[in-house]
Order: sequence, then C-alpha cells, then structure tokens
Amino acid sequence: MKIIVDCFGGDKSPAANVEGAVLALKEHDDLTLVLTGDEKRIQAELDRLGYHGDRIGIVHAPEVITGEDKPTDAIRLKKESSMIKAISMLRTEKDIAALVSTGATGSLIAAATLRIGRIRGIRRPAFCPILPTMTGDIVGVCDSGANVDVTAEMLLHQAIIGSAYLKYAYGKDNPRVALLNIGTESEKGDNLRKEAYGLLKNCGSINFVGNMESRDLLSGKYDLVVCDGFSGNVLCKATEGTAMELLKKLKEQIYSKKKYQLGALLQKQMFADFKDMMNYQNYGGSVLLGCEKTIVKGHGSSNATAVKVCIGQAYRMSGGAMNDEIQAALNALDREE
Amino acid sequence: MKIIVDCFGGDKSPAANVEGAVLALKEHDDLTLVLTGDEKRIQAELDRLGYHGDRIGIVHAPEVITGEDKPTDAIRLKKESSMIKAISMLRTEKDIAALVSTGATGSLIAAATLRIGRIRGIRRPAFCPILPTMTGDIVGVCDSGANVDVTAEMLLHQAIIGSAYLKYAYGKDNPRVALLNIGTESEKGDNLRKEAYGLLKNCGSINFVGNMESRDLLSGKYDLVVCDGFSGNVLCKATEGTAMELLKKLKEQIYSKKKYQLGALLQKQMFADFKDMMNYQNYGGSVLLGCEKTIVKGHGSSNATAVKVCIGQAYRMSGGAMNDEIQAALNALDREE
Repeated sequence: MKIIVDCFGGDKSPAANVEGAVLALKEHDDLTLVLTGDEKRIQAELDRLGYHGDRIGIVHAPEVITGEDKPTDAIRLKKESSMIKAISMLRTEKDIAALVSTGATGSLIAAATLRIGRIRGIRRPAFCPILPTMTGDIVGVCDSGANVDVTAEMLLHQAIIGSAYLKYAYGKDNPRVALLNIGTESEKGDNLRKEAYGLLKNCGSINFVGNMESRDLLSGKYDLVVCDGFSGNVLCKATEGTAMELLKKLKEQIYSKKKYQLGALLQKQMFADFKDMMNYQNYGGSVLLGCEKTIVKGHGSSNATAVKVCIGQAYRMSGGAMNDEIQAALNALDREE
Repeated sequence: MKIIVDCFGGDKSPAANVEGAVLALKEHDDLTLVLTGDEKRIQAELDRLGYHGDRIGIVHAPEVITGEDKPTDAIRLKKESSMIKAISMLRTEKDIAALVSTGATGSLIAAATLRIGRIRGIRRPAFCPILPTMTGDIVGVCDSGANVDVTAEMLLHQAIIGSAYLKYAYGKDNPRVALLNIGTESEKGDNLRKEAYGLLKNCGSINFVGNMESRDLLSGKYDLVVCDGFSGNVLCKATEGTAMELLKKLKEQIYSKKKYQLGALLQKQMFADFKDMMNYQNYGGSVLLGCEKTIVKGHGSSNATAVKVCIGQAYRMSGGAMNDEIQAALNALDREE
C-alpha cells in the first residue's frame, strides 16, 4: 500500500505531517509513503526524528497553497505546490492508492474534483467529516460543503458511499443513515427532501432510519447524516462553533472568581476527559468520498497524531474492497430502476 | 392596545398563559387582553390568582391543537380550538393588534399564513426566533422554518422586516444584518446566496455587514441573520441542541464523582448564571414577521414569566410604527428598481 502525504499547508506543517508519516509506518508493515513539499525541510524533519528507512520517498514541491488562495487560481497557478503535485501523482501513478493533506479545503476539493476520476455512477464527490457524539461514538456528515446544489439521487449516492466509508474506516457494520430535515416525520421538508426520503427508504443496501433534526446530531442515535452541502456546512459549523463558544465561556467564567477556580481544580480530570472526548484530532480527517482513489483531509491544525490517524484512515479505505462494495450497490440501484 | 392570548397548547397551559397575562397587565397600563380556551379552566386560574379586574376577557374555545395534529387538518377540523379562534378574531376584529400563542408551531404558521393579511409587498411571512449570544446579547434568525423555498428578494425582505423587529421589540437602532453562508467571502455559496448578497449590499435601509458562517452565530458580532427556512432551522436547532447536549453531558460527568460534585458546589452561582444566560424564556418568543398584525409564538415549555415577556414583545411591536417603517423601506426598494 502506497500513500502520498502533502506535507505543507497545515498550521503545524511540515513537522506534524512528517512525524505523523513516521508514526503511521510503525502501525502498518506493508505501508510505504511519498511526502510532497520542500525537500530540504522534509529531510531535516526526518533527520530530526532519526528516520533513515527506505519506506519514505520525497517529491520536491517548493510552493504552498494557503487558505488565501482562490481554489481555481491555486490549481492553475501553483502547479509546483505540495498539494497539486500530490494530486497529480495520485492521478497518474497507478500504485499510489491515497492522499492525505492538511492543506486548504477548498483547493483540495476543487483539485480532486477536477483531476481525480470518480467511481462510475457518482456525479460529484462529497465531503464527509466525522464528529464525536455525546455517547463517545462518532457520526459522519455527508456532504458538508463540496456540493451546494444536489439532487435526490445525489443524496442517495451520498448515503451509499458514506455507509461504505463508515464500514471500512470505522468498522461500523450496518451504519444507521438519517436524512437531515426540519422535522422527523416522513413528509417534512421541501421537494428535494421528500424525494430523497423515498429513494433512501427503498434502497436495499443501506440502513435508513428516517429524518433527523439538527439538534440530534450528537445524540449517538445516528452513524451517518445525509444532506446537501449548504445545510451540511451549516450543521457542522454550528455544532462545532456552539461547543467551542460554550467551553470558552465556561472557562472565562471559571477564571472570573477564585472560588470557581478552586472548584475547577477538583474537576481537572473531568475537563481533561471532556476535552479529549471532543477532540476531533482523535477521530481522523474528513474524507472526499466518491473518487476512484482515497482522499483524506486532516484539520488545518492537525498535530502528528492527527496526521497518523488520517493515514490509518486512508489505509483502511484503500484496499479496493470499499470501492467494489460501493460499485455493487450502485449497480444494484440501476437494476432496481 | 388589545392583545389576544391563546391559553392552550403549551406544556404549562393554561396556568402559565393566564398568569403571564395577569403579570403583563401590571407592566402596561393601556393593555387589555382576550384569552381563548376552555372558559371554566381559564376562569379557575384567574380566581386562583385573585384577578377580578375588567381588563381581561375570555372567549370560550373547547378544543386544543397539539403537535400531533397535521397543520392543514388542524386548521380545517379544529375550528373550535383556542388557537384557530384566536387567529379568526385577530383577522376579523380591528381593535385586536396582536396574538400570543405557546401552541403548535406548524399549525400557528400555517393558520397565520392562510388567514392573516400580509404587509403589502411581502410574499410570505417569516419566522424569527431570538437566541442569547455568549456576550449576553441576543441574535435573531430569520427565517427559521416558515419558508423552505425562498428567492433572493425574499431574503432581502426578511432583512428589512427583521431589522424593524429588532429595533421595535429590542431597541436595537441599527441592527447588524448578516447572510448565513458557507464562508465569509462575498462570492461564497450557491446562486441564491450570491444574488441575495448583492441585493442586501445595495439596500440603503438596512445595515448589512456581510456573510456569516454558522459557527459565529453566538459570537455577538451580529444582531440578525438572514437565511432560507431550511438552513435557518438547521442552524437554530443545531445551536440549541449542541448547547443542551453539552450541558447535559457536563452535568452527568459532575455527578459521576464525589470530587467533581464538591467542585460544582463552589461553582453553584456560576452554573446558575450560565443557565440564566442561556434561558430563552428571558428573551421572548419567536415572531412571525411580515403579517399585518403581530404574531408571537412562545416556546412550548413557556412559564408565566416567558408568556409575560412574549406579551410585552407583542405590545412593543404593535403600535403601527413598526409596520409603517417596514412599508416605507419596501416602497423605497420599488423606487430604486
């Protein structure tokens, strides 16, 4: 298994990316990695870590794409960037199965959509981040922003590829799929939602459990939520944003009085556990689903452990079995029609 | 000023509604109220509260609409319900300026949309709940679910009526209006958002400050967020749901160990303040904007104070000045075209 790691563009790049790569090698004996980015700086990190093995190759790419770059411009003008070089190699080199990047999301989605082939039958790739639930489990949201205009058929496809993803990357055997809606009753929502509800309900290869209201995302009752990219983006950012604002406010309140701080001292472990439970770094990156090859987008602030987790995710998804299963489900749909 | 109060359909009805009505009378000398619902039960509550004045009238309505009723059926079949009687009187009786209800949201929106006239130029009324921000301020979300299919022009109208609402009901003089989007840059989003951005930017009668990502709803940087009813519903429920899930989890953690409970004892006032800050009951109900008459929907779990706050809200919006200001802004739009 050969995976390419874009080593620039993250807040802690290249140190975290290179260290994450070295850590990932220890977990998978048959894994080899290609790192893209400034060769000297990557080599310096490898030297610092004392890695002298032959399972890591470096491909020099002097440029870096940032969040400031407009995606279409980035693809066109920064061909020598670590991200675009990685995408190009993923496209052309048959033995590279997957790409892990902590770089700019918009540019990565745009480059992957334009350059990487899709699974036959899939119109557009979809983005699927993973969020920790309050029951200590996880939930995937697909799509979270790659496609703002979708059809009911695309929502059905998202349910199929997302279910396969949760099975292969997270070992969930029969993931519970919900449709994001403004109420739980079957007849709720606009025409898109009503049509999608029917398609999801009649699809034999997924475990559709009905509509979900956004308030229940963290309840642990669902493994995958299917939605258009606009409302999925609103859902993910509102959930993360509220959690962050609340914890920030709580911290502020605690520091406002000596008495509260004293109380917090007794709760030190509790807050550490809480923070750990909500730490997305433990749960892996967002995956761009529907492509012929695996693309994992780690959070911009990923540390070495988070990068390692992303590489492990990519590894588990890239044996070929996942895409075969998706293709079989899509073929079954065609037969049903 | 005469306001009608639907006294049934809430979790604490009719006790909370009747007590809220009596409390509201004490705050506004020129206010009279009409209460709809089971006459005997309302009278019993008034007796319990020792109210024997002449500023409250009762209109008997034996039926109750619940969340189980399908809105279209409720309107058609439950004409003798406290809600539909109240809507009918609001429609026909010229001197009734506003309606306050804690009953089923879907039925109230449907009945109001079908029965109550709209401000000239407004195509559909929009629903605008108020959420507490982390800076101790408030933010309105318009629309939160009345219209799932909207046009850019409807979003502009929502900005105008929402701004007037925040001015009259909350004393905000030049409310900062944002457009809910998947990024802050002006060119973000689908065609609807791009078109709406242009209209909002060019409208002289509102204070448009740009796109907002859902994660910033509670930041205190915005007074009003304009969005389609689908994503607005996702936004509000994700924000409320996450806050509730987090606080529930925190409580659960605190009770899991004696040591944590001891700490929480020292923080008792802090948690009380926190809970108070996040208590929607303090901030009033959601308002159905764009109608010729004021309609305030209190939360289903409203207590007497919450009902009183809703009546106060309705009172401040119903002098005529607010709708005049909205009409002037809409007329100005016509002239600009």
